[in-house]
Amino acid sequence: MNFSNHFSDAANRMQPAAIRSIFNRMQPGTISFAPGMPAFSTFPVERIKAATAAMDDEAMRQSMQYTVTEGYLPLREWVARQMPVSTATTADNVQVISGCQQAIDLMGRVFLNPGDKVAVSAPTYTGGLSTLSVYGAEFVEIACDDEGMLPESVEAALQQSPKFIYCIPNFMNPTGVDMCLERRQAVVDLARQYEVPILEDDPYGELRYKGDPVASLYELGPDCVVYAGTFSKVFAPGFRVGWLVAPIEAKERLTRAKQTSDLQVSGYTQRLLFDAAQDGFLQEQIARVRGYYYDQRNLMMEGIDQYFPPEVNYVTPSGGMFVWCELPERIDATELLETALDRKIAYVPGTLFYASDSGKNTLRLSFSLASAQEIDEGLKRLGNLFAEVIG
Amino acid sequence: MNFSNHFSDAANRMQPAAIRSIFNRMQPGTISFAPGMPAFSTFPVERIKAATAAMDDEAMRQSMQYTVTEGYLPLREWVARQMPVSTATTADNVQVISGCQQAIDLMGRVFLNPGDKVAVSAPTYTGGLSTLSVYGAEFVEIACDDEGMLPESVEAALQQSPKFIYCIPNFMNPTGVDMCLERRQAVVDLARQYEVPILEDDPYGELRYKGDPVASLYELGPDCVVYAGTFSKVFAPGFRVGWLVAPIEAKERLTRAKQTSDLQVSGYTQRLLFDAAQDGFLQEQIARVRGYYYDQRNLMMEGIDQYFPPEVNYVTPSGGMFVWCELPERIDATELLETALDRKIAYVPGTLFYASDSGKNTLRLSFSLASAQEIDEGLKRLGNLFAEVIG
Repeated sequence: MNFSNHFSDAANRMQPAAIRSIFNRMQPGTISFAPGMPAFSTFPVERIKAATAAMDDEAMRQSMQYTVTEGYLPLREWVARQMPVSTATTADNVQVISGCQQAIDLMGRVFLNPGDKVAVSAPTYTGGLSTLSVYGAEFVEIACDDEGMLPESVEAALQQSPKFIYCIPNFMNPTGVDMCLERRQAVVDLARQYEVPILEDDPYGELRYKGDPVASLYELGPDCVVYAGTFSKVFAPGFRVGWLVAPIEAKERLTRAKQTSDLQVSGYTQRLLFDAAQDGFLQEQIARVRGYYYDQRNLMMEGIDQYFPPEVNYVTPSGGMFVWCELPERIDATELLETALDRKIAYVPGTLFYASDSGKNTLRLSFSLASAQEIDEGLKRLGNLFAEVIG
Repeated sequence: MNFSNHFSDAANRMQPAAIRSIFNRMQPGTISFAPGMPAFSTFPVERIKAATAAMDDEAMRQSMQYTVTEGYLPLREWVARQMPVSTATTADNVQVISGCQQAIDLMGRVFLNPGDKVAVSAPTYTGGLSTLSVYGAEFVEIACDDEGMLPESVEAALQQSPKFIYCIPNFMNPTGVDMCLERRQAVVDLARQYEVPILEDDPYGELRYKGDPVASLYELGPDCVVYAGTFSKVFAPGFRVGWLVAPIEAKERLTRAKQTSDLQVSGYTQRLLFDAAQDGFLQEQIARVRGYYYDQRNLMMEGIDQYFPPEVNYVTPSGGMFVWCELPERIDATELLETALDRKIAYVPGTLFYASDSGKNTLRLSFSLASAQEIDEGLKRLGNLFAEVIG
């Protein structure tokens, strides 16, 4: 049977993941600053083994059964307790999801008809753009600087009546920018004024290396913000557990959307993660992971300082996993990737993070996965390549 | 913020799960034949504990990392080996999913535009109808008898140009009917003739109590059938691992749809299930589970024979978890459920399994979860109720 004329409009909007095609072209021995994956060494294997061995058989059977779509109640109560007291969050506001990717998918399902607009920061998470595109979203870009989204650009976007704003205030993927409090407050105020909800995607919030935590958009606007968090970066992405916190009316629709998608998240991995959140283990784990990436970031910034020509612009990120680089405008980072891959070094071209055609001269480097030696050698290769093309 | 005028057409098509509302109204002490959940006692707790303790730390870290969307390769190879040799299935045809519910969702995403038709057996899985409705599906019902879908009704449905056929040939939910080989061949032949693919949903295939296995639709038509299987009924639904097997062109689109939905299934639970599929454990487990439900079925059929008035029609299912009952036509099983719940006995009214308004006098009884004593007492209560209303 020939399937090609059977597919839906949504299917025809789905593209194979662009970052994956970079992985597919890597030769053995390539040093990769491309993936946003956590480091293997941070996964708490011993804790999981001990928790499994210690688990009461009856509790384990419960975790292996179907559960309610909303998720394991003690985990939802734990999530609610993590949210600021002022938000009056309870387990009723919490939906357990398989990670922040699913938050974006469920928001698309609940809010978007084909042709609806979504306001997104420029640049933003490429997987978010792909998923929202499947729902037929048209994007309105919001300009950013080193302190986050520009309020005047937010307002201009809201005047185009988007269905929601999608943003990553903490250590934005891909730029690593930490949105300042004044900007966060301005975005929430504008969202209220224009009655446009916000999806706050927060996979990196715990990975702060400098300064005090800034209030989340949800803390500033629990009436208009859907917050997405995850265990993927600080614990293990392979467990597929994250959470949404939302105003009740939105949360109920998101739960129905989750139910029609896949019924529920694994009760088994939810149970193991809830266990890890007890007796202070998760806080110790987060402190370890944060320390690890802090060292990684410092290694990378030292290498960049040492090897990159002065024409390459970058900002030291105060959190997260990424450094965003701008090459001189005449240089196309997508074209340059071909040569980089030939020289066994990989990064993600910045254009992938834009809904529009922008960012040709930008690229994202991840410091999460490479060893100290790889960081040094990889940045040396990249610095040489940049110096050659800048001339 | 008032969200009510923000929701998408899809969101407005989502209804809270009807079966759940039955659970919500149950008083303590209710004997329930409603849920299609596996029995807690069948979950292999000891095996999981042993496999976790024995897992190599490096393998465990790999399972906790992000994986490719397609799933854990050894598991996909194992799935491919389970399919008939004649189908020439390889790991390239396999997409790991979180369960059969997700198969339905991904098929909706890949094949349906709002208003497209889907041909479904009448009755069929209520969760399938809900999920496909979210995509704006219009249903064309296919009439069934005790041997499955009627070929003339399949052909009439195909003449209305549905995007695909959705069916459960093995021990159909809710009727327990096992489609005979001739009917299966006829459905595949017609699907080819009309160029309409089939989604074959097979959660219950391993739970056969009588007769030899019948060829799957996928075995008969690997070019036109998307097959969905799961570990949920024979191992543990809380692990959220199932699989799709599909012609390459369809599989690639289904993989992209999975990627935009939730990236991947838990690598951790995939790894544990792959381990369970080694050294004959899974076959032993399936034999145990099958034996357990066989005994449960027999207890239920004995109780029905003993307590139900002769006006109630039913067929002894040769597999699965359900008995389908027909009351005299004048009796409405949905209305009767109110009285049943007052008397602390629960079932699922048959209308929920129809896309149309049919089946008012039908109901589904599950024998998966109740104890022997509950089966006896529950059927006695139900039999008395039926006798009263039949008069």
